[in-house]
Amino acid sequence: MSSSDIFLGEVIGTAVLILLGGGVCAAVTLRRSKAMGAGWVAITFGWGFAVLTAAYISLGLSGAHLNPAVTVGIAVQSGEWAKVPAYFAGQLLGAMIGAALVWVSYYGHFLAHLTHREVVGGPGAQTTAAADRRRSDAPGPVLGIFSTAPEIRNPVQNLATETIATVVLVLAILTQGLTEGLALSGTGVLVTALVVVGIGLSLGGPTGYAINPARDLGPRIVHALLPLPNKGGSDWGYAWVPVVGPLLGGALAGVLYRLAFA
Amino acid sequence: MSSSDIFLGEVIGTAVLILLGGGVCAAVTLRRSKAMGAGWVAITFGWGFAVLTAAYISLGLSGAHLNPAVTVGIAVQSGEWAKVPAYFAGQLLGAMIGAALVWVSYYGHFLAHLTHREVVGGPGAQTTAAADRRRSDAPGPVLGIFSTAPEIRNPVQNLATETIATVVLVLAILTQGLTEGLALSGTGVLVTALVVVGIGLSLGGPTGYAINPARDLGPRIVHALLPLPNKGGSDWGYAWVPVVGPLLGGALAGVLYRLAFA
Amino acid sequence: MSSSDIFLGEVIGTAVLILLGGGVCAAVTLRRSKAMGAGWVAITFGWGFAVLTAAYISLGLSGAHLNPAVTVGIAVQSGEWAKVPAYFAGQLLGAMIGAALVWVSYYGHFLAHLTHREVVGGPGAQTTAAADRRRSDAPGPVLGIFSTAPEIRNPVQNLATETIATVVLVLAILTQGLTEGLALSGTGVLVTALVVVGIGLSLGGPTGYAINPARDLGPRIVHALLPLPNKGGSDWGYAWVPVVGPLLGGALAGVLYRLAFA
Amino acid sequence: MSSSDIFLGEVIGTAVLILLGGGVCAAVTLRRSKAMGAGWVAITFGWGFAVLTAAYISLGLSGAHLNPAVTVGIAVQSGEWAKVPAYFAGQLLGAMIGAALVWVSYYGHFLAHLTHREVVGGPGAQTTAAADRRRSDAPGPVLGIFSTAPEIRNPVQNLATETIATVVLVLAILTQGLTEGLALSGTGVLVTALVVVGIGLSLGGPTGYAINPARDLGPRIVHALLPLPNKGGSDWGYAWVPVVGPLLGGALAGVLYRLAFA
Repeated sequence: MSSSDIFLGEVIGTAVLILLGGGVCAAVTLRRSKAMGAGWVAITFGWGFAVLTAAYISLGLSGAHLNPAVTVGIAVQSGEWAKVPAYFAGQLLGAMIGAALVWVSYYGHFLAHLTHREVVGGPGAQTTAAADRRRSDAPGPVLGIFSTAPEIRNPVQNLATETIATVVLVLAILTQGLTEGLALSGTGVLVTALVVVGIGLSLGGPTGYAINPARDLGPRIVHALLPLPNKGGSDWGYAWVPVVGPLLGGALAGVLYRLAFA
Repeated sequence: MSSSDIFLGEVIGTAVLILLGGGVCAAVTLRRSKAMGAGWVAITFGWGFAVLTAAYISLGLSGAHLNPAVTVGIAVQSGEWAKVPAYFAGQLLGAMIGAALVWVSYYGHFLAHLTHREVVGGPGAQTTAAADRRRSDAPGPVLGIFSTAPEIRNPVQNLATETIATVVLVLAILTQGLTEGLALSGTGVLVTALVVVGIGLSLGGPTGYAINPARDLGPRIVHALLPLPNKGGSDWGYAWVPVVGPLLGGALAGVLYRLAFA
Repeated sequence: MSSSDIFLGEVIGTAVLILLGGGVCAAVTLRRSKAMGAGWVAITFGWGFAVLTAAYISLGLSGAHLNPAVTVGIAVQSGEWAKVPAYFAGQLLGAMIGAALVWVSYYGHFLAHLTHREVVGGPGAQTTAAADRRRSDAPGPVLGIFSTAPEIRNPVQNLATETIATVVLVLAILTQGLTEGLALSGTGVLVTALVVVGIGLSLGGPTGYAINPARDLGPRIVHALLPLPNKGGSDWGYAWVPVVGPLLGGALAGVLYRLAFA
Repeated sequence: MSSSDIFLGEVIGTAVLILLGGGVCAAVTLRRSKAMGAGWVAITFGWGFAVLTAAYISLGLSGAHLNPAVTVGIAVQSGEWAKVPAYFAGQLLGAMIGAALVWVSYYGHFLAHLTHREVVGGPGAQTTAAADRRRSDAPGPVLGIFSTAPEIRNPVQNLATETIATVVLVLAILTQGLTEGLALSGTGVLVTALVVVGIGLSLGGPTGYAINPARDLGPRIVHALLPLPNKGGSDWGYAWVPVVGPLLGGALAGVLYRLAFA
């Protein structure tokens, strides 16, 4: 594969991944969406089928990494690092495009959600401007459509969870080649997508399973840039965890593969 | 494939698609259905497996387009337009037959649903004839079994959402041929069906994801013709959006394929 | 395939089908089951994966019909009727064994469910013996673990729904052979299982989708024979509908196949 | 396969199985998890995709038994017992490692869950130390993240349920070889994973479907060893049932295979 095909494939594939993955978060979160409140099963299957669709589309062009952690894991396993920059660049740009497409697809719902004022406590209740500001500054459900946030904020714990979940993901992808006829096939893509559903169901509880630095960082940048009213902060203090944890997990999976499976 | 096989295959396939797709909307919506209230996960998987079943049945006869947006996308990609009329005609007729079969399958439940009077507010509550008429004229849950309607009515926004969702669908179908052994196979049909589940979960929130002009227009015509009591209007003012948006999305996917994947 | 292999394969396969299919109904229905109230999505996927497991196990022995409607459809399509009695006998016996195995697997929960007295209305509420008898004679949730019952009882309507749903099922199975490498393969079994999930989601609302005479009749016989306290009647008045409808649907699918696909 | 590859593959595979399987129980159970309350559908699909991921990873090294009941079933079917000790040792060690990884991944949530005091009954309510002790000694939701427990405690009944469920599982795995190209393929792994989802949906209601001695015993040992506050007892009185039942079921499946399918 040429570097330009890789870049192009990763841009398109990661854009589709984030359009559908961020899309399901928007669908379940935003006021007046038909899927509002559809829950964790909808979110995890939505992300899994986002991987399915994106990988299916970009398989022929770039091999469908769509995730810097996967790229690092394959580089550690194979020892070839030359194409890594093309993968990384395509993944980050694609993730940003995808997040912008979520914003376009759900624009009316973002506005309806963010400008809604829920009056709690009956006609006599009052909210001060300070309380309003505090609430809208907190990383709220709108940031959650773009990036992940932990339920219990503890960097070491959160990093461990993201690292462990990514080891599972990348190891499952690396071992594809060991099963005859599976690598780069339709069945292989399907199995990988369901592995992602499984990781979400099982290990998504604490941090919301970024397991992909581009998936978290690209949309967070877009969240910071987008002109949405009351959108709140972009929670940059947490941003390094879903970048470092997955990269570490990808590298560990590559090492583990070389030790145990090569 | 001969034009008569194409027409026949698309009639049968699209009839099955709408029978099952409209069926799951009826199952989840209609009073006294065993699936009433089963929610968005049931609806999206129901539509996905409707695609699976219909495509599986019609694959050998017509290649299982089942969707004018897919036909347009393939025509733009391949440059061959001769068979397009046979596809379109079969798809629209099939969608109408499918909607009529939903009506037959759920006839008793339609009657129970539409003739039910829910007394809200206790014994003293009264509803005026005007309020009754207004309610039954609005596009209500019964039209929703036939056609799509947006949650926030804004033609430009709704058109954008339908177009983007259809680009994803048609691009995923066009790129099938790039994965060895996948096009026109059982696994290919399965992956496409799960892509449709994914699009529903992720991008169905604002407009209910027509992503198929025949899927929306055919059943809307049948809704207008059927002798159901209190069925309300057929919302013709919105009808152009789920026709134009998907056709535009299919054409854009064909162009994108030629630019990036050919 | 020899008639004895067919009989054996259908006995084992249909027993597994009903053990798992009746099992999911027990799991969702019976008091103190961990899955109680898991809903329609659980039921439809449970039945679909029951088909998957049973077909997978019996594929090599009997070709995994597991359903007299499938056997009739294949006989009408192929013109070969010699093996039909062996299939029918194995299916009915297997379904009875499967229903008995549900009873064994959930015996403690059946007892806990059927002997429970829910006191409604506080300490002063009283239920008369007549009301008790009436309630336990009605086809209740325990019969629903064995056999199907319509939500709106109307034989013509119920027959139409069962017939239409079975046409879809059997047509999808007959057209398997048209897709290269699909018939009698692992992927074919998987697709058929998901078709069954789809039919349940979409057309199961009115009658609970028997779509298989053995699936309904065999367990109904077992329900009539089992020594369960307060089990109520076996609703023999409805029993012919889920037998005749599916057989009619299977035959119609065979005719349709010969007309349109041969 | 060498004994060392078998041991290594089973350690890694069973560790992944329990990390994801125990993980989904933690995700659905623990306070402040994003998946809290996601329900039985989430649990059964989570365990199924845990099997998918683990089997996929270890297929090339050890053939992915991951379950002493599967190993026994294959030994009975094939008559070869030499490698059984390597399988058993890897499975038990892997299950313990997996349970420890669940503890690491959800450590903060375990603490938040176990140290939480829910005050029931308003400001005046009091709980005695005895009540506290009784509650924390009972096998509660935290043990449920590690091991299974029956809803209705009756050893004979519970043993029967576990045995029957395991016969279905192991028979489905043994008959894989009868379908061309299925054994040890990506599709075979996928079908087996969905069979496990199906067994959970259908037969998990009474005992929580261990259907795997290592899956239950390994995590129970880890539960006994882990320094968690208020973790309660490890319910050793029940521990033999999910060991003996599955082993019996595996052996019965092997016998049934030799009688009916060989």
